[in-house]
Amino acid sequence: MLKVKFVPQNKEIEVAIGENLIEVARKAEIFIDAPCNGNGVCGKCKVKVLQGKLDAEKTRHIKDEEWNEGYVLACNAKVIEDVVIEIPSNASAAMHGMKIEDLSGERENKIFENAKKQVLENGMEFKTYVKKDCIKLDPPTIDDNISDFERIKRHLRNNLGYDSVFCRLPLLRKIPPLFREANFEVTITHIPRGHKKTTIINMEKGNTTNRLYGIALDIGTTSVAACLVDLYEGRLIAKASSGNAQIKYGADVINRIIYSTKRNGLAELNHAIIEETINPLLEKMYNDTGISRDEVVSFVTAGNTTMSHLFLGVYPDYLRMEPYIPAFVKPPFIKASELGINVNPETFVYLVPSVASYVGGDITAGVLSSGIWASDEMILFIDLGTNGEIVFGNKEYLMTCACSAGPAFEGGEISSGMRAAGGAIEGVKINRKTYEPEIEVIGNQDPVGICGSGIIDLICELMLAGIIDRRGKLIRDLNTSRIRFDEHGIGEYVVVFKEQYKLEKDVTITEVDIDNFIRAKGAIYSGITTLLNSLGMDFTMIDKIYIAGGIGNSLDIGNSIKIGMLPDVDESKISYVGNSSLMGCYLTLMSEDARRKLEEVSNNMTYVELSVEPGYMDEFVSSCFLPHTDIEKFPSVEKLLRR
Amino acid sequence: MLKVKFVPQNKEIEVAIGENLIEVARKAEIFIDAPCNGNGVCGKCKVKVLQGKLDAEKTRHIKDEEWNEGYVLACNAKVIEDVVIEIPSNASAAMHGMKIEDLSGERENKIFENAKKQVLENGMEFKTYVKKDCIKLDPPTIDDNISDFERIKRHLRNNLGYDSVFCRLPLLRKIPPLFREANFEVTITHIPRGHKKTTIINMEKGNTTNRLYGIALDIGTTSVAACLVDLYEGRLIAKASSGNAQIKYGADVINRIIYSTKRNGLAELNHAIIEETINPLLEKMYNDTGISRDEVVSFVTAGNTTMSHLFLGVYPDYLRMEPYIPAFVKPPFIKASELGINVNPETFVYLVPSVASYVGGDITAGVLSSGIWASDEMILFIDLGTNGEIVFGNKEYLMTCACSAGPAFEGGEISSGMRAAGGAIEGVKINRKTYEPEIEVIGNQDPVGICGSGIIDLICELMLAGIIDRRGKLIRDLNTSRIRFDEHGIGEYVVVFKEQYKLEKDVTITEVDIDNFIRAKGAIYSGITTLLNSLGMDFTMIDKIYIAGGIGNSLDIGNSIKIGMLPDVDESKISYVGNSSLMGCYLTLMSEDARRKLEEVSNNMTYVELSVEPGYMDEFVSSCFLPHTDIEKFPSVEKLLRR
Repeated sequence: MLKVKFVPQNKEIEVAIGENLIEVARKAEIFIDAPCNGNGVCGKCKVKVLQGKLDAEKTRHIKDEEWNEGYVLACNAKVIEDVVIEIPSNASAAMHGMKIEDLSGERENKIFENAKKQVLENGMEFKTYVKKDCIKLDPPTIDDNISDFERIKRHLRNNLGYDSVFCRLPLLRKIPPLFREANFEVTITHIPRGHKKTTIINMEKGNTTNRLYGIALDIGTTSVAACLVDLYEGRLIAKASSGNAQIKYGADVINRIIYSTKRNGLAELNHAIIEETINPLLEKMYNDTGISRDEVVSFVTAGNTTMSHLFLGVYPDYLRMEPYIPAFVKPPFIKASELGINVNPETFVYLVPSVASYVGGDITAGVLSSGIWASDEMILFIDLGTNGEIVFGNKEYLMTCACSAGPAFEGGEISSGMRAAGGAIEGVKINRKTYEPEIEVIGNQDPVGICGSGIIDLICELMLAGIIDRRGKLIRDLNTSRIRFDEHGIGEYVVVFKEQYKLEKDVTITEVDIDNFIRAKGAIYSGITTLLNSLGMDFTMIDKIYIAGGIGNSLDIGNSIKIGMLPDVDESKISYVGNSSLMGCYLTLMSEDARRKLEEVSNNMTYVELSVEPGYMDEFVSSCFLPHTDIEKFPSVEKLLRR
Repeated sequence: MLKVKFVPQNKEIEVAIGENLIEVARKAEIFIDAPCNGNGVCGKCKVKVLQGKLDAEKTRHIKDEEWNEGYVLACNAKVIEDVVIEIPSNASAAMHGMKIEDLSGERENKIFENAKKQVLENGMEFKTYVKKDCIKLDPPTIDDNISDFERIKRHLRNNLGYDSVFCRLPLLRKIPPLFREANFEVTITHIPRGHKKTTIINMEKGNTTNRLYGIALDIGTTSVAACLVDLYEGRLIAKASSGNAQIKYGADVINRIIYSTKRNGLAELNHAIIEETINPLLEKMYNDTGISRDEVVSFVTAGNTTMSHLFLGVYPDYLRMEPYIPAFVKPPFIKASELGINVNPETFVYLVPSVASYVGGDITAGVLSSGIWASDEMILFIDLGTNGEIVFGNKEYLMTCACSAGPAFEGGEISSGMRAAGGAIEGVKINRKTYEPEIEVIGNQDPVGICGSGIIDLICELMLAGIIDRRGKLIRDLNTSRIRFDEHGIGEYVVVFKEQYKLEKDVTITEVDIDNFIRAKGAIYSGITTLLNSLGMDFTMIDKIYIAGGIGNSLDIGNSIKIGMLPDVDESKISYVGNSSLMGCYLTLMSEDARRKLEEVSNNMTYVELSVEPGYMDEFVSSCFLPHTDIEKFPSVEKLLRR
């Protein structure tokens, strides 16, 4: 056996000769970012060998200088002797220290209040389906010797009018000692159904009717956000978010699906989301609040269709292959214990229904919370997460489609890209004369990479400063040390020189990165165009645009238009609505009426498959320009560029 | 660590110094009969030390001669050095080689046909609630791209009229690969409910509609019997029975309940019944027939109330303590996977409802199959298992009570007692002049012990031959070597001398054994009397007596009357109905109408608590004679004894 040690984590693991370094890191529970799932394509899994040697090849992602310093791609390296490996900070930043969704922020509070208002204004009750009742049973005697379970049934029939009372085995097992310990005064948590039926899901000693909690959870491909809610008042008691631990198996849904087809792959992905992501978030909230898992008796979650499949451990491979068929859109009834989620084991897990293979429950939930279903105005809803999904409509109808935008908006497939965590550059300005940048970094830390909103700003500013042309290529003869070209002639613009912050490497954006990003924004723009065209409509008919998703708070709407990601409409029509999926989960958790509305919405959304829509490919190709091949579509940008 | 080797099993195990030998045997999975659960009371766990020494005391159960030969009580012995232990054949016979319930025997066939007839004659349908349907789905296309689960729902709605279709997560996980592998032709196993609802519990490739199976299972305190049934025709395909592996934790329900209060006790008892008893029986039937566990989709079982609690892993201790409260009588809905039963994991486990703490589902099932609920005649039903339960009534009403008869009818608490397995003496005649016995042995084997029916014959013959008096004491001055007295003056009658069959010890019946048995039969007789008295009735009002339970086929009705176990009525009124509990499970498995009738029966049976009935204790004391203190109650016996 050989020894592999990872720093700065200081973890050591014994491995067999020839083992792949990325697999070794997974075994050691060391996070190495590998968006392409170890195919050698993305170049993100760069690590530094401090001691010993690996069997690795130099690839196009490793520069000569890096190679000499000991950098290799972990996915491409085999262990052949004892080694010490350094994990660069930007490779591990992705999973830990994600920017916590600031649900108490002013903007979110407003969105949250709006969402709640819409529910109430539409005549829907803010009332959850789980109830608590404290009951005092008559203690048994030799003359009144019916069983414990019959005793509670009799009480509920006589005192609360329930003719049928159900419970499951784990609860029955709790009853006999609990009744005696509690002196026959217990609080039941139950779910009334229909007229006179109820199902008991928990039983506690004494009177605990004032403690009733639930979880709303958004499962993003990249990040996961949760809140712990008081089910009586709808108060947010705690919140937590982190990266999705599945990231180590691939950055986007396609790579995850491919990984699921490997031996144990599906189980590993399911374990990563439940045991490595969701349960730690729950633990954190329990620790922060003193609420125990058994008190959490309601659970609503949403994710895209692939995340939904992986969350349930359902094989997702047919999502990826024509004709792109999900196993389910509306999942069956599931208990928390079946999935190993660390809430009360009898809790019903409500997974928000999807619409189609690439329009998931996160979009259904987003439509619910953003109130499109109740709107007279025509609303365009765009979710800019690891993929891009679009909904267009109003209270009369809802059309939806998915764009293959990839993970670029969350920093994926961009060499210095990272998620919106501490150290991410989220805003950039470039001096038009000196070509020097001015950056904003999340958390006032030293910059280690660039997140989605920063990339949008950067590309926009590069374009407006004349550093790149409309194809995204760097202008060769500018007088600045920030532009340079490698041995293959590929150019890059240096945003941060490593010396300034003692970084391991410069933070740059390459022509390849820019090209990747242009394709992503082109996918969104052409998606919007094609969806509207399919209805015989155009941008003038849009009353409002809502942007949701992981691209983050700092999104500059104007710049998003200028690079041609969003249509050139009045900026005031566009607003960022935050994590609308989490909001939708929260509303579903708090209101049975909202849940019914949600199901109605998911049934009534019409899915448009872009790949079979005529003209889509032409539209996409035309959109892969800054802002577009047809500059007349962007009169406001045309003006700026003409100056 | 010390080494303990068991022969003839040839199992060796390493143990710490000072470990109790009965615990060591359990760890080594060596069965040692210990009806009293290791309290040193029953003397059944006698083993022989062949090599080495144990730290053990001589107790009243070990004779001087035995002590010198190396016999000790395992429950009383600690390991202090390496030893080799011999397990006597009668100690291990109990668990293995139990007499298989011969369901194809002529008597059982008749009982079985009668039971079925009664169901049909009472206008009930012989039809199970589980259905199979083969469905051919339209394969998905890009234009018909609904999800797999929606596809099956649409098919069932359009083709079979089900508006609501449910399934659980494990099945959903099976769907995507199965559909493709099966080319979208699958057979669903489902349970229609109400008008247009159904729940799918299994899905198989291709057309398997001709294979639909269920299990009927009787869980006795002492033995467990199962049959595998074709759910279309009700055909018995396989059967199996064995001892209840819980026996090692105590022979009767009280000792099992006490064991359940120990650390891990409940879990061990639950494991013993499910993993060590039921699952091996199922495996055996699968091996015998080639039917796979996934094809078994219906399961009905019954046991007494304690067995029902232990089967579900529900704490039973309050059954034992006044006011004797069960956790449940009608259990909630349970899936096979929740209990770890080796049938299709989605199978519903139907556990027949109990009536009270000491009248269990086995009695409910017995009442169903014996047809008392439909009878015009007054029927007395007696279950002689490890306990004694009595039902009296007809189609108008049903009264029931439980007698604390203990395990004597199944050979428990009798020094040479054993269950009705191969080698058990099941019939005895004694020559009135020579006092020599003539024995019948199960399976034409060498005798190793005496089962319940043998003990009844033996005591009856001892009494009629004048070898014992009416109190059960041996007459001291008879001219036979078969009567002898130990150092404490306790007498015994030798049924088999060990030399005749090269046994390890003589097969005898002691005065203590006879006394134990007289108490057991007295409990039954006084129970019957008290139950009838409580209704203001007497024996003349009984039209028929049915004897059910583990006492076995060979029960001599006449002798049962002569010893005063059964009332002195015309023998032709009395019949043995075999394992009526298993029959009831079978009927419940095969007929939804029968299941409804069963629930009605369990709701309508009136339980009489004997311990609070006036006169019961007096009646019991009077019954602890052969046949009774008041010989006038047994005119037919009086005649014989007068001769």
